Amino acid sequence: MKKAKIKVGIIGANGYAGMEVLRLISSHPYAELNAVTSRAQLGKKVCEAFPALSCALTFTEPDSADIYACDVVFVALPQTAGAEICGNLIDKGIRVIDLSADYRFDDISVYEKTYGVTHPRPDLNKKAVYGLCEVNRDKIKTAALVSNPGCYVTSAVLPLIPLTKNKLIDNVVIDSKSGVSGAGRKSDEAYSFTTLDENFKAYGVFTHRHAPEIEEKIGHKIIFTPHLLPIKRGILSTVYFTVKDEEAAKSALKGAYEGETFVSYSDSLPEIAHVAHTNKCVFSARFDGVGHGIIVSVLDNLLKGAAGQAVQNMNIMFGFEETSGLPVNAPI
Amino acid sequence: MKKAKIKVGIIGANGYAGMEVLRLISSHPYAELNAVTSRAQLGKKVCEAFPALSCALTFTEPDSADIYACDVVFVALPQTAGAEICGNLIDKGIRVIDLSADYRFDDISVYEKTYGVTHPRPDLNKKAVYGLCEVNRDKIKTAALVSNPGCYVTSAVLPLIPLTKNKLIDNVVIDSKSGVSGAGRKSDEAYSFTTLDENFKAYGVFTHRHAPEIEEKIGHKIIFTPHLLPIKRGILSTVYFTVKDEEAAKSALKGAYEGETFVSYSDSLPEIAHVAHTNKCVFSARFDGVGHGIIVSVLDNLLKGAAGQAVQNMNIMFGFEETSGLPVNAPI
Amino acid sequence: MKKAKIKVGIIGANGYAGMEVLRLISSHPYAELNAVTSRAQLGKKVCEAFPALSCALTFTEPDSADIYACDVVFVALPQTAGAEICGNLIDKGIRVIDLSADYRFDDISVYEKTYGVTHPRPDLNKKAVYGLCEVNRDKIKTAALVSNPGCYVTSAVLPLIPLTKNKLIDNVVIDSKSGVSGAGRKSDEAYSFTTLDENFKAYGVFTHRHAPEIEEKIGHKIIFTPHLLPIKRGILSTVYFTVKDEEAAKSALKGAYEGETFVSYSDSLPEIAHVAHTNKCVFSARFDGVGHGIIVSVLDNLLKGAAGQAVQNMNIMFGFEETSGLPVNAPI
Amino acid sequence: MKKAKIKVGIIGANGYAGMEVLRLISSHPYAELNAVTSRAQLGKKVCEAFPALSCALTFTEPDSADIYACDVVFVALPQTAGAEICGNLIDKGIRVIDLSADYRFDDISVYEKTYGVTHPRPDLNKKAVYGLCEVNRDKIKTAALVSNPGCYVTSAVLPLIPLTKNKLIDNVVIDSKSGVSGAGRKSDEAYSFTTLDENFKAYGVFTHRHAPEIEEKIGHKIIFTPHLLPIKRGILSTVYFTVKDEEAAKSALKGAYEGETFVSYSDSLPEIAHVAHTNKCVFSARFDGVGHGIIVSVLDNLLKGAAGQAVQNMNIMFGFEETSGLPVNAPI
Repeated sequence: MKKAKIKVGIIGANGYAGMEVLRLISSHPYAELNAVTSRAQLGKKVCEAFPALSCALTFTEPDSADIYACDVVFVALPQTAGAEICGNLIDKGIRVIDLSADYRFDDISVYEKTYGVTHPRPDLNKKAVYGLCEVNRDKIKTAALVSNPGCYVTSAVLPLIPLTKNKLIDNVVIDSKSGVSGAGRKSDEAYSFTTLDENFKAYGVFTHRHAPEIEEKIGHKIIFTPHLLPIKRGILSTVYFTVKDEEAAKSALKGAYEGETFVSYSDSLPEIAHVAHTNKCVFSARFDGVGHGIIVSVLDNLLKGAAGQAVQNMNIMFGFEETSGLPVNAPI
Repeated sequence: MKKAKIKVGIIGANGYAGMEVLRLISSHPYAELNAVTSRAQLGKKVCEAFPALSCALTFTEPDSADIYACDVVFVALPQTAGAEICGNLIDKGIRVIDLSADYRFDDISVYEKTYGVTHPRPDLNKKAVYGLCEVNRDKIKTAALVSNPGCYVTSAVLPLIPLTKNKLIDNVVIDSKSGVSGAGRKSDEAYSFTTLDENFKAYGVFTHRHAPEIEEKIGHKIIFTPHLLPIKRGILSTVYFTVKDEEAAKSALKGAYEGETFVSYSDSLPEIAHVAHTNKCVFSARFDGVGHGIIVSVLDNLLKGAAGQAVQNMNIMFGFEETSGLPVNAPI
Repeated sequence: MKKAKIKVGIIGANGYAGMEVLRLISSHPYAELNAVTSRAQLGKKVCEAFPALSCALTFTEPDSADIYACDVVFVALPQTAGAEICGNLIDKGIRVIDLSADYRFDDISVYEKTYGVTHPRPDLNKKAVYGLCEVNRDKIKTAALVSNPGCYVTSAVLPLIPLTKNKLIDNVVIDSKSGVSGAGRKSDEAYSFTTLDENFKAYGVFTHRHAPEIEEKIGHKIIFTPHLLPIKRGILSTVYFTVKDEEAAKSALKGAYEGETFVSYSDSLPEIAHVAHTNKCVFSARFDGVGHGIIVSVLDNLLKGAAGQAVQNMNIMFGFEETSGLPVNAPI
Repeated sequence: MKKAKIKVGIIGANGYAGMEVLRLISSHPYAELNAVTSRAQLGKKVCEAFPALSCALTFTEPDSADIYACDVVFVALPQTAGAEICGNLIDKGIRVIDLSADYRFDDISVYEKTYGVTHPRPDLNKKAVYGLCEVNRDKIKTAALVSNPGCYVTSAVLPLIPLTKNKLIDNVVIDSKSGVSGAGRKSDEAYSFTTLDENFKAYGVFTHRHAPEIEEKIGHKIIFTPHLLPIKRGILSTVYFTVKDEEAAKSALKGAYEGETFVSYSDSLPEIAHVAHTNKCVFSARFDGVGHGIIVSVLDNLLKGAAGQAVQNMNIMFGFEETSGLPVNAPI
């Protein structure tokens, strides 16, 4: 007998991450969309608001009855805007995957300092599980609230954790480059085609909000600089560090994710095009023999860096095959 | 009981079309890859030759035993190179979907003149079915050999057939623009990044091989100019014509593909990004009220224009749900 | 003795066309910037508002004393916004090059219908010279007010005038493709990088304002469709027509601009990259031998299509060598 | 009386750097092209080989009489291919600007190790002046042979020299990103549009040849990783270091190039589009207050990183105004 599909809601489906969750769920074998919300698109059909999406649903308010009839809700709202909503859903027994930073920090004081706000639900923060799938899989299985990691963060911490947890490296510098979709939907000349095409720039030098998130997750200080690539999607992080035992570092990197579908060490240097439009994070490393190491790590910022990892978390939470509905092969 | 998947072979999996068939079959619910061939990549693992593809198969010769153990074989070789191979497979009872132009023409003399060759299997040409899915669905179901249409051709003939079969239009001019992947994999300075980035050009003016294919399929003379867009994938064709009865033309365009998933009329003008990475062809039309009409038609040249339509043909041939394994929603 | 440079003003230097005039004048051998105006940037230094420009001037109001001390003023304001200002300058004896459409039409009723406004200075419109340099050179020399042609218009009418003035062609269809800078500076999601990158679309089908301008300048009805290319700058127009005497048409096209630096016939098909960042318009033609012709014409929409032609007009008006300060070689 | 222009030759005008020198000289006020050579294009007119260039000269052999009639010759050949030619020219009293790496190193053993060759003219190497204009201006004035710096090198050493010469910093990591033209003209699938568009990758990790050049010029060890940006031109280098005296470092950076046209410190972070198509290098710095500094430095790899700096060297060598023929304002 065919098992019924779980019912999925998306709050904030008007942004890129929400739209990508919608697209993934639309072709998921074990899940179906029950409700999508957007105040900006209220009352419009999804397919009318977004000609690229064939979805026949109509955007509702975030507190619609259809949302409360869901088995799981993805919340893709800006920081703090969704923190209360997550609470309400959890309180009614609905499992939540939050794509904002609200529940990402163990240390609330770091969150509050980084985002310049007071956390609205410190009680709930304690129960939230950080949804770095390959690292926290067991906790995710039973979590009521999963907090989906940041895009830059995922690209950096997946290869760094095997090194820092064994205290193998020091002096970590992370130079990251992201496609423009990472900035979200923008009506801003700074993100116009003519401004960004054939251009490249650094931003948020010493001030980007993903730095404290990376530091908490690896338990080590870092220097982090993000840059804006003139491409739609993809992140490449070049990670510099000093290392005493190169062999131990190599071994840790190669062994950490053996058997994983979505995270892997590659002998050759990975490129963004190898993972764009997939849910994979691939990294490689080089050492100079005198104490310096470099990791190159790539992923798709909207998939493994956002919506894809969110759906992977859903798969884990509901006991589905973890790769269900998630692409592993990159298109040309 | 779970039905066994059909076994699929790909001959010429080293080119873009073949690689995209491989990618689609890798996540197809009712088909699995049994063999992939490439003389250039002979003996290499797919995932080593192409880091973007996770496939564990090894490239073999086109006449390997694994190919002959398949239920269906996609042949993605250059013109005439695969014509004999198609014949050999058909002779052994294996169904074939040929992505070249070899079996696309009813009139072999037009094929021979257009491609400057002698057709190696005129006998087989008679049995081949032109794989324009929505138009020839019934014939495709039982075909031994399906000839997959050209990319420009599909973008133009899907909207034109409803008009020309009713003799509603005349003076047809087709101005098409294609992404660079349409040219295939190239080691040629003319296709280098520095040559094509921030560039745009016409080519094949009055001489492109897709013009005779379009003319045969719509039964009408055309003027056709292809252009090269600085994007990876996607075709937009702007079709100009004269029309006597605008209402009849509108009605024909809107009604022709009602109920179809992959081909549709849109009230708003479609853009390449609405269909890139999907198997859809979407078109719209405008009329000036004094006898002129313009159609704008878009598709992804590697999917609905090649590998996607090929897999759709497979779905029809084997009685699968026609949308199986084929994307309908475009990513950001 | 070194001749003093003429003094140049730019009203509306905050838009792309104005910024490009500023850039060209900054390295012009016989002209120097005396004043630049922008209400949006009032009081800011040019180099602070635009880090790409080294100009030390400060943006003023359009009616500043420095503007009235100029020998020539470029007015680069939106339609109708600058029409009165042009008049005031002309009234005080300052020569004006207007980059808007306000003074482009001989027939004011067509202008008023096309732009949905009442012309504020019909008296001045009669004196304005249409600044298509190679065609109206003699009139431009002595003009008080030169109206700079539209970008699409220039790409189409330069090759069409030699054909239409001799009544050699009919059934003209112009399919044009423009880089995004043609739309001006935008804070609009429709022009964001993520929306336009890897995308292509038609717009203004049967309704674009450059169609009536083309029709007036060539004296012939046309069908015109503009499209948006994912590049910063450049226009390619593909022009379709029927022709009785191919030899006469070829001859007219090849002979029309002999000896010109900035407009030329090319035997090979021109590409946008051949003329981007130059003031050139290059075109070629092909014929099918049975009555159909196709012209491919390219230019840089911000140079020969706007600021470059404007400076060329200035060179003509002031008796400078016509190529002064204008690039003829395209960078890689 | 108008001074005669100097005569310029370009050996290897078939590559990007040579083509850009050609373009710059074509509009230079005090120099004119006398000869251009290319074995690949021998006997062809420049304008036929490169439709983007209006130059009427014909490509000759590198030892043509016209070359030996020049006042200065730019040699833009691959490593070692031009080293002898440079010697022959110098021996005949012709001044040479060499764009290869052959004469860049004070320490020949580093050159030989880095490039895997034996230096063909160690005698001449001693006389060569490293053409980093703003740093070595006085020596360049009288040099017979100027060796033009590497593109990545220029972007990194201009901001680093003021810091390292005063021993203000340590632990230098340089993460550089370059446009594709930096790789030269390529007929190679790895540089095809479809491979590089929407892609980004690191290469030459711990092995790139510009690392030893940077180390020699700043007198300090570095870690260097180059990356390939999907743009035509431009380099952005992000430079990480530790610093004890932040104020001294800031002061050194801000003061080092005061009064220079082409090299400047900027308070705001520079972007590639601010300097593309100009001869400028602009950098800015940020400090974290606890001992870490980051510099962001940008230039156009074909201009300040190659042909532009080469022409600037020519201007210095011949006593022309140093900015002659060199762009300072970036186009849109």
